[in-house]
Amino acid sequence: MSSPVTAAEKDPPYKIAVAGLGTVGCGVVEILQKHEGLLARRTDRPIEIVAVSARSKGKDRGVDLSAYKWMDDPQALTADPDIDCVVELIGGSEGVAYDLVKAALNAGKDVVTANKALLAHHGDELARLAEDKGGALAYEAAVAGGIPIIKTLREGFAANRISGLHGILNGTCNYILTEMRESGRSFDAVLKDAQDLGYAEADPTFDIDGIDAAHKLAILTALAFGVRIDFERVRVSGIRHVSDVDIAFAEEFGYRIKLLGVARQLEDGTLLQSVEPCLVPRHSAVGAIDGAFNAVFTEGDFVGPGAMVGLGAGRGPTASAVVADLVDLCMGQKRPVFSVPAKNLTPADYADSAAVSGHFYLRLSVLDKPGVIADVSAILRDCRISIEALMQRGRDPGQQVPVVMITHDARQADLARACEQMAALSTVLEPPRLFRIEKIASL
Amino acid sequence: MSSPVTAAEKDPPYKIAVAGLGTVGCGVVEILQKHEGLLARRTDRPIEIVAVSARSKGKDRGVDLSAYKWMDDPQALTADPDIDCVVELIGGSEGVAYDLVKAALNAGKDVVTANKALLAHHGDELARLAEDKGGALAYEAAVAGGIPIIKTLREGFAANRISGLHGILNGTCNYILTEMRESGRSFDAVLKDAQDLGYAEADPTFDIDGIDAAHKLAILTALAFGVRIDFERVRVSGIRHVSDVDIAFAEEFGYRIKLLGVARQLEDGTLLQSVEPCLVPRHSAVGAIDGAFNAVFTEGDFVGPGAMVGLGAGRGPTASAVVADLVDLCMGQKRPVFSVPAKNLTPADYADSAAVSGHFYLRLSVLDKPGVIADVSAILRDCRISIEALMQRGRDPGQQVPVVMITHDARQADLARACEQMAALSTVLEPPRLFRIEKIASL
Repeated sequence: MSSPVTAAEKDPPYKIAVAGLGTVGCGVVEILQKHEGLLARRTDRPIEIVAVSARSKGKDRGVDLSAYKWMDDPQALTADPDIDCVVELIGGSEGVAYDLVKAALNAGKDVVTANKALLAHHGDELARLAEDKGGALAYEAAVAGGIPIIKTLREGFAANRISGLHGILNGTCNYILTEMRESGRSFDAVLKDAQDLGYAEADPTFDIDGIDAAHKLAILTALAFGVRIDFERVRVSGIRHVSDVDIAFAEEFGYRIKLLGVARQLEDGTLLQSVEPCLVPRHSAVGAIDGAFNAVFTEGDFVGPGAMVGLGAGRGPTASAVVADLVDLCMGQKRPVFSVPAKNLTPADYADSAAVSGHFYLRLSVLDKPGVIADVSAILRDCRISIEALMQRGRDPGQQVPVVMITHDARQADLARACEQMAALSTVLEPPRLFRIEKIASL
Repeated sequence: MSSPVTAAEKDPPYKIAVAGLGTVGCGVVEILQKHEGLLARRTDRPIEIVAVSARSKGKDRGVDLSAYKWMDDPQALTADPDIDCVVELIGGSEGVAYDLVKAALNAGKDVVTANKALLAHHGDELARLAEDKGGALAYEAAVAGGIPIIKTLREGFAANRISGLHGILNGTCNYILTEMRESGRSFDAVLKDAQDLGYAEADPTFDIDGIDAAHKLAILTALAFGVRIDFERVRVSGIRHVSDVDIAFAEEFGYRIKLLGVARQLEDGTLLQSVEPCLVPRHSAVGAIDGAFNAVFTEGDFVGPGAMVGLGAGRGPTASAVVADLVDLCMGQKRPVFSVPAKNLTPADYADSAAVSGHFYLRLSVLDKPGVIADVSAILRDCRISIEALMQRGRDPGQQVPVVMITHDARQADLARACEQMAALSTVLEPPRLFRIEKIASL
């Protein structure tokens, strides 16, 4: 029999081009330079940077790029027969990144990317293209950089039917929610600080509106359930409307608020795919994930429950994931892009979100006067919603006070109807705030 | 370019033999039968059981084995040219399992095993043999079945220099320590219950004396640091001497006692490799891992801190790990056994354990009479050990009472000397109990 390990010694270098030299791109260059010896011991085949491409050549990036060909136009990388793999770290779901990845795959090259938006929007098309042309499309860095969750779902748990996963997939949101809880400050104040400190972008929309987490969740759903990626079918709501009041009340009821991505097969076989602020038990493992950490919790039919925690973003963790993909590819390890060959991926049957049931947290801002609770209670009764706990903190006759309720198991549609009716009451002064309480398995 | 994904459709089945049909062996058969369709979608190449072998053919094992060749002698599997891979689930570091794995590798076959004892004792020899003959030696199931830690260290974190890892690697010990804490009962009482419930073996030595965890730690050390496996150099002590008194005191000081495996590069470059009961902060992630769960915490130079949690043992998780290895191999994914080709593995320079320093928990059983604390304090002073906290719960003149101390940073050798001197005092009635306090990184 042949010996792949020894044979690899004679293999030529695995030649790569890095497109995009921002923080992650430079991190990749740094790892390949700093750990050249370490990687050579592990692979017996060098990974060699042949070319790089970015917008401004002159900029000092803190890494030595002088040994690499510079290409102003990343597309030129795809025409170079000397390049085995294009590392796309430009970002964005359309435009330059999309064109580059498509051209590289069309040329039969491998592609490694950290671009979750690109995969969420074009993953199906790109996976088919990669598999048709024989190149790889690897993207460990696209979801929770410090956590090898792509590899774990695709390989580590390959023997399992995954029944569900949930996770904290956006470090910026988790940082903001953690800061709000610890400092008692408002969303706006904490966001501004996070921006000043560089933890949040100047335009934080993608993060705080849950879009970034939804991109990642769509990828995990496709991988875990062997379904065609469908970002449009992720129910998304972000953390803009989580107030410090909600965080404090959640704490009193024994919960924390987390922006949670959930992909789960429901009893009727449909798939729930959502990113939304949820209450989770304060002492659960997911409730303890604070700050910039990401976490993914999985449940497989043989492996049981599992959890993985790590840094979600940043130069080191993301570049580490990119280089892990490069090592896999340089060793000849190629798996179908979404675990199942793209042609075998089936469209999922998604749950009607109105039919989803669970416990809910509901906060009203009401005028403190007799009869308000009676009016609210009547609406809930008519909508067949029963209440597990109700808290009206303090009395302030004639003024605005919060009333918080935790429901028993109820249908989302019934809750929505009830909220609509309550909002119409003259004594309810603001739109009701509604958050789902996520039941957490044994981990 | 060729297309490996489509080409795989034409590949012949990957033919395996399962040797050992205990709980894990039957679990592997069950997964391959139950998830035949699921696996076929993922691999495009069937994994086919050709033969099985175990001691008693007639036994009803709850799985249908009628389609497979039965071999009374597992060695016969290695002579069958029809078999690509031998799955060794017999167990034990010597004898039948060792002979089988060696013969299978010598025949150029792949081997998948869950046998941590075999790898701990013969890993270096077997890795060389596998790599010489071109077969694979895969063992995800050998360490923390439900956690793909082998794959994560070998592949997911391949871009990193690992500076350290620590983990809870034995579910039986963790179950016993958790039960002791929750019920306040003694080690002996909880062990007996665990045996009655099937959570501990009739002969629990390997588990409770830390040997099983040490086998696993030796494997993780080799993988994480690229060093030759060296089970003999694991400092091992088990949980027999952890008393309910220690667990209660630890709790009062804000700690929990866990049987912790630690592999860490010290500042002088030497490697600490130990399995011992340690105090860990009660509110740390590792302190929260209870019952039968295992957990591994890692620290890489680029990826940062990471944690993985899952079920450590049992039919489902272990069989899941075995099948994950089979899927890798049937897809042609082969990596050097210990991440670095065996010929490149270097012997480690292990830390002189006496030189290891840290904070320690020290409990004395003393006669409650004036001057005892002064005597003890003088010894500690002379041994250059300073005390962060001291607790003497209650007074009981003339009787035996516990005195518990938490030290500041101190050398293990100094502590050992102090313990020897204290044990010689007439007022110290039992051998001092000493546990290291494990400093926990940000996770």
